Amino acid sequence: MGFMPATERNSGVFAPVIMPFRHNLEADPERLIRQCQWLLSQQVGIAVFGTNSEANSLSVDEKIDLLDRLVESGIDPRRLMPGTGLCALTDTVKLTRHIAELGCSGALMLPPFYYKDVSDEGLYRSYAEVIERVGSERLRIYLYHIPPVSQVGISISLIERLLASYPDVVAGIKDSSGDWQNTKTMLDAGWDDFRIFAGSENFLLQTMQAGGAGCISATANINPAGIYGLYQDWQSPGAAATQQELLELRECIQRFPVIPALKAIVSHFSGDPEWLRMRPPLVELAEDQQSDLIGKLEAMGFKMPGLAEGV
Amino acid sequence: MGFMPATERNSGVFAPVIMPFRHNLEADPERLIRQCQWLLSQQVGIAVFGTNSEANSLSVDEKIDLLDRLVESGIDPRRLMPGTGLCALTDTVKLTRHIAELGCSGALMLPPFYYKDVSDEGLYRSYAEVIERVGSERLRIYLYHIPPVSQVGISISLIERLLASYPDVVAGIKDSSGDWQNTKTMLDAGWDDFRIFAGSENFLLQTMQAGGAGCISATANINPAGIYGLYQDWQSPGAAATQQELLELRECIQRFPVIPALKAIVSHFSGDPEWLRMRPPLVELAEDQQSDLIGKLEAMGFKMPGLAEGV
Repeated sequence: MGFMPATERNSGVFAPVIMPFRHNLEADPERLIRQCQWLLSQQVGIAVFGTNSEANSLSVDEKIDLLDRLVESGIDPRRLMPGTGLCALTDTVKLTRHIAELGCSGALMLPPFYYKDVSDEGLYRSYAEVIERVGSERLRIYLYHIPPVSQVGISISLIERLLASYPDVVAGIKDSSGDWQNTKTMLDAGWDDFRIFAGSENFLLQTMQAGGAGCISATANINPAGIYGLYQDWQSPGAAATQQELLELRECIQRFPVIPALKAIVSHFSGDPEWLRMRPPLVELAEDQQSDLIGKLEAMGFKMPGLAEGV
Repeated sequence: MGFMPATERNSGVFAPVIMPFRHNLEADPERLIRQCQWLLSQQVGIAVFGTNSEANSLSVDEKIDLLDRLVESGIDPRRLMPGTGLCALTDTVKLTRHIAELGCSGALMLPPFYYKDVSDEGLYRSYAEVIERVGSERLRIYLYHIPPVSQVGISISLIERLLASYPDVVAGIKDSSGDWQNTKTMLDAGWDDFRIFAGSENFLLQTMQAGGAGCISATANINPAGIYGLYQDWQSPGAAATQQELLELRECIQRFPVIPALKAIVSHFSGDPEWLRMRPPLVELAEDQQSDLIGKLEAMGFKMPGLAEGV
């Protein structure tokens, strides 16, 4: 996929990078940097501070510090699409301004998610206030539609209203609704260069066939090359078979709580038990669940090449 | 109800104080202080940063600044029970530590609410980490159970586990489930001096009859004396009739989105249009809704004594 100037729009496969914590539950920048470098070596972009990053268990200042460390380590900010949407307008503005200043290629932005049954008018005002306050020509926003978790969704009419006001800023969406019809409606809408990412690789082939931009998926943390392979070769004769393999791997992981399962997998294949740790309210897998999960993956021939060796 | 030392437990009626915003959407400390002083003059305690305070639309630093301003204005911190439960462990610790240092009588604490279907083990760890990290003998936590909004609830077994570990800190609960059977189960549990607040005045008489501590209610913003009257006189012969009047007033308000309705009422009866303003994602009532609401209230003979004059 190569690097692109910050004003271009994103496509490809991105991982909502899982977050390593030290014994005192502080985020661990060194492990995070190493993990991001490995993901980049697998052609996968860095959607750090996604749902699977336990991002909403971190403060804005913790996130700003981690972003600074990632960029200082030499990671190209144009490969970063951090999550920045928080409940408080002022928090979202602070974090989004920072990622624009760093030159990140986009902000993946949840709507404010505490208040439920909010109106499109209220959500429009939320996004508009953030865009106006950040006031950066470099800012690109990818809306984050994940109603199963946020319980606050992003409607088609809200997108249309935002595009009418901010066509240069509102650059795309991640659709984690799990509802292909919603993704398809957006893909068919004909919005100019609006980048539509599937919320998991389960819909990657369909998304690419219908003109989408790629996917941002939990499982890209553990199978980046496999998912990127389908993204790159979606027009090849073997694409349907590859999609089926990806579905089976994901199905195996989804028998467990996904975020601790991803950490258990990275922990096992890197030989690093520190990766197991979760920040409350999430909890690690029990030992028998870990063994069960790893046993199933090994029976499928699953590997994580290059992870244990470092990049 | 009088003042009490910080180590005593709360009872009575508390208002989750609505939040005034300036034209630039900054919180307005002067108006907030005046409103709190008026509420205190009506015998109602200050549960600032509740759901009805638009608290989750404010950053931790904004809340700390407002709390400092309230205390500097001369408001007794022992009458303050601020909301402090946020998604990020580090944010909850920072705000809760501040309210303990200020000598507030309690923290009304939401569970972390972004991740759904979390385990009691994870929620136990969340509360336990906050308690251990704040590490203050002055800290009193009132759990905040509001599954219709937070979508993450507090189970009976979680309360029992927290009480077994932290009997001096975990002092009570606000039950905004709207499920009287849940409140009753807690009232019947026989937990030592555990203070159970109804989440609205709709259940105030029942709560008091069953040994509860009072209520923390949106409507205490606009009818503090009425609700406090029932709290004080719940054993009087007229209590059932008073409860019925409170139900009718609340029913009238609940025909509208409650938070902007409360602001419209305070705006009208104080003659101050600044009170109408909401921070996104919430929006103010349309003008015809405002007229409709105020018309209905005036037809009921509703008044807010002393509000327009100041305290």
